[in-house]
Amino acid sequence: MKRQQITDFELFDIVTCGDEEEKQLLLEEEIELQGWVRTNRDNGSIGFIEFNDGTYFKNVQLVYTVDTKNHDVISAFKTGSAVKIQGKVVLTPENKQPFEIRVEDAELLGDVFEDYPLQKKRHSFEFLREIAHLRPRTNTFMAVFRVRSVLSFAIHEFFQSRGFIYVHTPEITTNDGEGAGQVFDVTTHTSKDPFEFYGRPVNLTVTGQLHVEPFALTFRDVYTFGPVFRAEHSNTVRHASEFWMVEPEIAFADLSDNMDIIRDCIKFCIEYVEEACPAEMEFFNNMIDKTLLERLHHVVNSDFKRMTYTEAIEILQKAVKDGHKFENNDIFWGMDLQSEHERYITEVVVNGPVFLIDYPKEIKAFYMRENDDGKTVAACDLLVPQVGELVGGSQREERYEKLKAKMDSLGITESLDWYLDTRRYGGCKHSGFGIGFDRLLMYITGMQNIRDVQPFPRTSNNIKY
Amino acid sequence: MKRQQITDFELFDIVTCGDEEEKQLLLEEEIELQGWVRTNRDNGSIGFIEFNDGTYFKNVQLVYTVDTKNHDVISAFKTGSAVKIQGKVVLTPENKQPFEIRVEDAELLGDVFEDYPLQKKRHSFEFLREIAHLRPRTNTFMAVFRVRSVLSFAIHEFFQSRGFIYVHTPEITTNDGEGAGQVFDVTTHTSKDPFEFYGRPVNLTVTGQLHVEPFALTFRDVYTFGPVFRAEHSNTVRHASEFWMVEPEIAFADLSDNMDIIRDCIKFCIEYVEEACPAEMEFFNNMIDKTLLERLHHVVNSDFKRMTYTEAIEILQKAVKDGHKFENNDIFWGMDLQSEHERYITEVVVNGPVFLIDYPKEIKAFYMRENDDGKTVAACDLLVPQVGELVGGSQREERYEKLKAKMDSLGITESLDWYLDTRRYGGCKHSGFGIGFDRLLMYITGMQNIRDVQPFPRTSNNIKY
Repeated sequence: MKRQQITDFELFDIVTCGDEEEKQLLLEEEIELQGWVRTNRDNGSIGFIEFNDGTYFKNVQLVYTVDTKNHDVISAFKTGSAVKIQGKVVLTPENKQPFEIRVEDAELLGDVFEDYPLQKKRHSFEFLREIAHLRPRTNTFMAVFRVRSVLSFAIHEFFQSRGFIYVHTPEITTNDGEGAGQVFDVTTHTSKDPFEFYGRPVNLTVTGQLHVEPFALTFRDVYTFGPVFRAEHSNTVRHASEFWMVEPEIAFADLSDNMDIIRDCIKFCIEYVEEACPAEMEFFNNMIDKTLLERLHHVVNSDFKRMTYTEAIEILQKAVKDGHKFENNDIFWGMDLQSEHERYITEVVVNGPVFLIDYPKEIKAFYMRENDDGKTVAACDLLVPQVGELVGGSQREERYEKLKAKMDSLGITESLDWYLDTRRYGGCKHSGFGIGFDRLLMYITGMQNIRDVQPFPRTSNNIKY
Repeated sequence: MKRQQITDFELFDIVTCGDEEEKQLLLEEEIELQGWVRTNRDNGSIGFIEFNDGTYFKNVQLVYTVDTKNHDVISAFKTGSAVKIQGKVVLTPENKQPFEIRVEDAELLGDVFEDYPLQKKRHSFEFLREIAHLRPRTNTFMAVFRVRSVLSFAIHEFFQSRGFIYVHTPEITTNDGEGAGQVFDVTTHTSKDPFEFYGRPVNLTVTGQLHVEPFALTFRDVYTFGPVFRAEHSNTVRHASEFWMVEPEIAFADLSDNMDIIRDCIKFCIEYVEEACPAEMEFFNNMIDKTLLERLHHVVNSDFKRMTYTEAIEILQKAVKDGHKFENNDIFWGMDLQSEHERYITEVVVNGPVFLIDYPKEIKAFYMRENDDGKTVAACDLLVPQVGELVGGSQREERYEKLKAKMDSLGITESLDWYLDTRRYGGCKHSGFGIGFDRLLMYITGMQNIRDVQPFPRTSNNIKY
């Protein structure tokens, strides 16, 4: 009889969701699994292997005895070995695991050198960062990277199902976005001359927004989703020099439309991940952050309030007057809010997600639309409890003269002349926003360090791979 | 009565696919559209506007008369203007267009400067490349970039629905993949010192494969899909310095399994795009390549044949002997096949897609698995008519000693020591492949130049934006 090749995912799926006929069939079949040994303990008469083939978060329990064929080989399987297993499924509804596999035969596919660093014990995240290529084999990182994949797809699903066009904006560019200068330069390895390859100096992009706007003024609803780069030596848990950004841009949308889409997108992503990764989300809630699911459910059920920057300043000033102590108690209109101020607003004042809107123009980017007061711009930052800013967006300055004057004052008109064309040729009201994908992933998993949600994190002085 | 905001896509969808009730409702409603004028001609008593809001490939025809409110404003709408239209839908089943809009009022949202380069005439692709930010407004590029978006999603859909985990492999790295040296170096703008930011010299990645393999040895089925870079001065229609690659990696898969997945993936992508973009594909078939749809259907209906490199060499040698003239007639075992040879095999010999397998090890990458003959490796290149190579893949060398010896001989063992860990710790049979996404898009659209399928192409001496 030919053995049935099957995966962990298929096994759990049939046992927990299959109908009686499927289950019966499974119990009768000889099955074959290929995967890796997480742990192996043999007490002499009976042995247990925690087995995982990567297709599902939970391990499968394998059981063997002294009478199992190739017992000596099986008993010697080391943590980390790649193995092939043949056996039969036995339902164990009385146990924690709904089923186990009675091993009938097994084969070692790939052995493990003695210095394997992932032995059976708890390892610190700091230690695991040093072996980024092996840490996905641990529970936490297997959960993180599956959720990363699912969340990426959720982003695409959200925008594609609403008719948005995905635009691959370029990584190598001649402009540095908002002009902050903290960019990486690019030259060929063979010639270090910055003019050699492209005829002019180039750098890695810090944002796809400027390049995606012309597509919004053609396709109406567009988004870009790809890597961006910052050459900042910020050694914090939230900064990386390479990360992925989601940047939608919507023609004929004002700031209010923009906030509707941000709210819908965040809610969609949370619900999508919870639906697709229940085992992983339960794990995060148990092991990483006991308030995670409660916090996410609260967001999904919130209407996202809106508050002007000016109101927020007044509230913060009143809080200080009433005796609240911030690290920085010097609250004034025109200041850049710090994380502690943002968290006070979202956690204490609103107790839920809140958009701050209409920021002083001096502290926001040149492309944001000036409001009629002449002092503020139509920006919106989404603040959420425990994190602060999660998404930043704005209505864009569509008025040619106003935008050009702003760009002239920054000295960027010449290098971004093509960008101004979007206001010369059939320009219109439009808005957009940016989601730091890695930070959204941190928010949804409860992970506290950006280095622990990126497959191979790139931060200052850290690039082993 | 509140006017119904609607898009081009929704209009075409209701008129061509809606039921009678939906159609009736649409005909009774006052509708409002926002979008751009493609052309506007007013013959005095009646005027016609070709209108497009970016949500659908086909234009909507707007009709106005001297009696239409704001006639003078409407009549003066220039090509490229952003406008708001109010009116009513009229079905015109006897015309080429199944409906038109009788304009009742309209408003200019964004005017067009006199020097607008996209006037009503046919522009060459060469000219349009100089205005990459405006060319999506032409029929060809509106079709190309919508298909690019849909094809991207098809890739994700194919792999996610099969349980593959999407891995964001890094862009900045310390290794140069296959060691060809044609890489871009990265330094901070403020300090040109290559050691300043990361503590060691770094470059842009040429492949995600080496970084994705450790994830396959955890999750079993994984893929990466992101930008890669080559600092080659190749000034051809198929080379760009920045492009997107799809790189799946599958544990426990041999070369034959690998080819099954490649075949299924290519067929899925073609069928997905045809289903999602019928208007665009019809346009490409009419305007770009009259054999396009026939060629694609032929691929979808083909079993993908398999032929060894050695057989191919024998066939080519026989062809030369029988009088066939190649540019390069010097056919010998061990040579790297050129495009003309590949096309002869796929077009003349097979007349359909064909995998060439088991290439001489000297002309293939170090990580490919050596066959038992000691001379060839388990590589597979998918050749298709009119293009030649479309996909390249291989079974990977999982045997530690063999791989280490190969890497020692290339002097890359030290810098890629972490990669060797995947063979030290529970290594197993695995395979993978790479699809140049931009070339696949060229293949599916019939577009002949890679510069015409990338939003902002990056090639030697070409980086205006």
